[in-house]
Amino acid sequence: MTEKTTDASVTLAVSTVIFALRPDRPTDLPSLWLPLVRRIRPPYDGQWALPGGPLRADEDLEASAARTLAATTALTPSYLEQLYAFGTLDRSPLERITAKALGLTERVVSIVYWALVNPDQVVQSGNASENVAWFSVDDLPDLAFDHDVIVEYALWRLRNKVEYSRIAHAFLGDTFTLAELREVHEAVLGRSLDPANFRRQIESANAVVPTGKRVTGTSYRPPKLYRYNQAIEPIDRGPLPGARQPLPAARKLES
Amino acid sequence: MTEKTTDASVTLAVSTVIFALRPDRPTDLPSLWLPLVRRIRPPYDGQWALPGGPLRADEDLEASAARTLAATTALTPSYLEQLYAFGTLDRSPLERITAKALGLTERVVSIVYWALVNPDQVVQSGNASENVAWFSVDDLPDLAFDHDVIVEYALWRLRNKVEYSRIAHAFLGDTFTLAELREVHEAVLGRSLDPANFRRQIESANAVVPTGKRVTGTSYRPPKLYRYNQAIEPIDRGPLPGARQPLPAARKLES
Repeated sequence: MTEKTTDASVTLAVSTVIFALRPDRPTDLPSLWLPLVRRIRPPYDGQWALPGGPLRADEDLEASAARTLAATTALTPSYLEQLYAFGTLDRSPLERITAKALGLTERVVSIVYWALVNPDQVVQSGNASENVAWFSVDDLPDLAFDHDVIVEYALWRLRNKVEYSRIAHAFLGDTFTLAELREVHEAVLGRSLDPANFRRQIESANAVVPTGKRVTGTSYRPPKLYRYNQAIEPIDRGPLPGARQPLPAARKLES
Repeated sequence: MTEKTTDASVTLAVSTVIFALRPDRPTDLPSLWLPLVRRIRPPYDGQWALPGGPLRADEDLEASAARTLAATTALTPSYLEQLYAFGTLDRSPLERITAKALGLTERVVSIVYWALVNPDQVVQSGNASENVAWFSVDDLPDLAFDHDVIVEYALWRLRNKVEYSRIAHAFLGDTFTLAELREVHEAVLGRSLDPANFRRQIESANAVVPTGKRVTGTSYRPPKLYRYNQAIEPIDRGPLPGARQPLPAARKLES
């Protein structure tokens, strides 16, 4: 694996793109948001960046991502997956120059995770720090380093996965109406979907099953409540260790 | 991105899983093979491992993978993609103990790439070193570190991709018969496919187009030659930098 140690000027960091759904004003429909951290030292002092930090020697990669997430948002993710390792030499030319001037490490390789959190949790928890703020993915500020590229790639991954997996579940409660499920898909994809087509697709995929209950309320015909078909894995991560239990792994943080 | 440097006891390495097709004896049908490197120092002295090594400070991740590949096999990959970063604390307990005894770095995080090479190239090039050997994926030796887990995951990724992308192209020449294409799919998937079903699927996917030519030979009805439909991207890597040109990036090595 290695004959000599890596050049000491390479730093290994772990960062996390955290997606949540929040109601948009004034429509009250859900849309995609993510938290950013304002940097309080150079390089990119004062600019917004993805939450993250250097990997600790005694820490798993996924544990590092979950720790960052907890420190930033006080949240436990309902989904957490490795996205990509970003390590090109030109990912932050400014950083290299500034770093040299400041006598800091020149090069950072970032292993990036992406996470989904439940919107109810977001409302309850607020932010963990005054230097953390949530932004709509449609209205992001200029980001430090190459974090704009990372966010774009994370959005692409999320939008791909929501179409062929049970990923939307992370944004919903245990039971939901088909309209709520469609609104999640619309928020993730950033476009509206035909309700009748959506219902047909969902029903033919056998991904959700009726609970036999309806929304409690005053309307004449309250909508039916559904739940996800537990027989279908939320997402296929293949033979990776712990791959069949993404949720328990993420929940380790709760203890 | 980082407030302090990573603990110096974390080494960042880049390894590559390289797949090629070679004729199996005695059937002469293609099957999947990969090259391994025999370790010549502890830990795991004498055992087989994936080709790789520590990341150089002045080197892109992908360039590091391509360099390793060239040094191991003297080949230019026809496909090269990041697979996953492996960094759990328990990925090589033996390594940690041995490393301590030897005064080496305790922990290695490996960013792993996977590559496909053309079988004609393999025959021409042979191996770059006497410590390199090719193995059938169905008959691998015990591997050093957690490299068995890495190979299993790479195989899973390859098998998934061959079903929904043009990935088999990397194993074929510019033109090929449908039987040759099917044999590649069979070799990758490790099971036989019904020829008529395969033909229907391939034709309905519009992934290959007839060249109008036939195999040159003596048979009464020589099979038609096809080529891939160039209008379809070989694989969708999304908005990653350089994602639309995986081949030119890999070919940089030739200069």
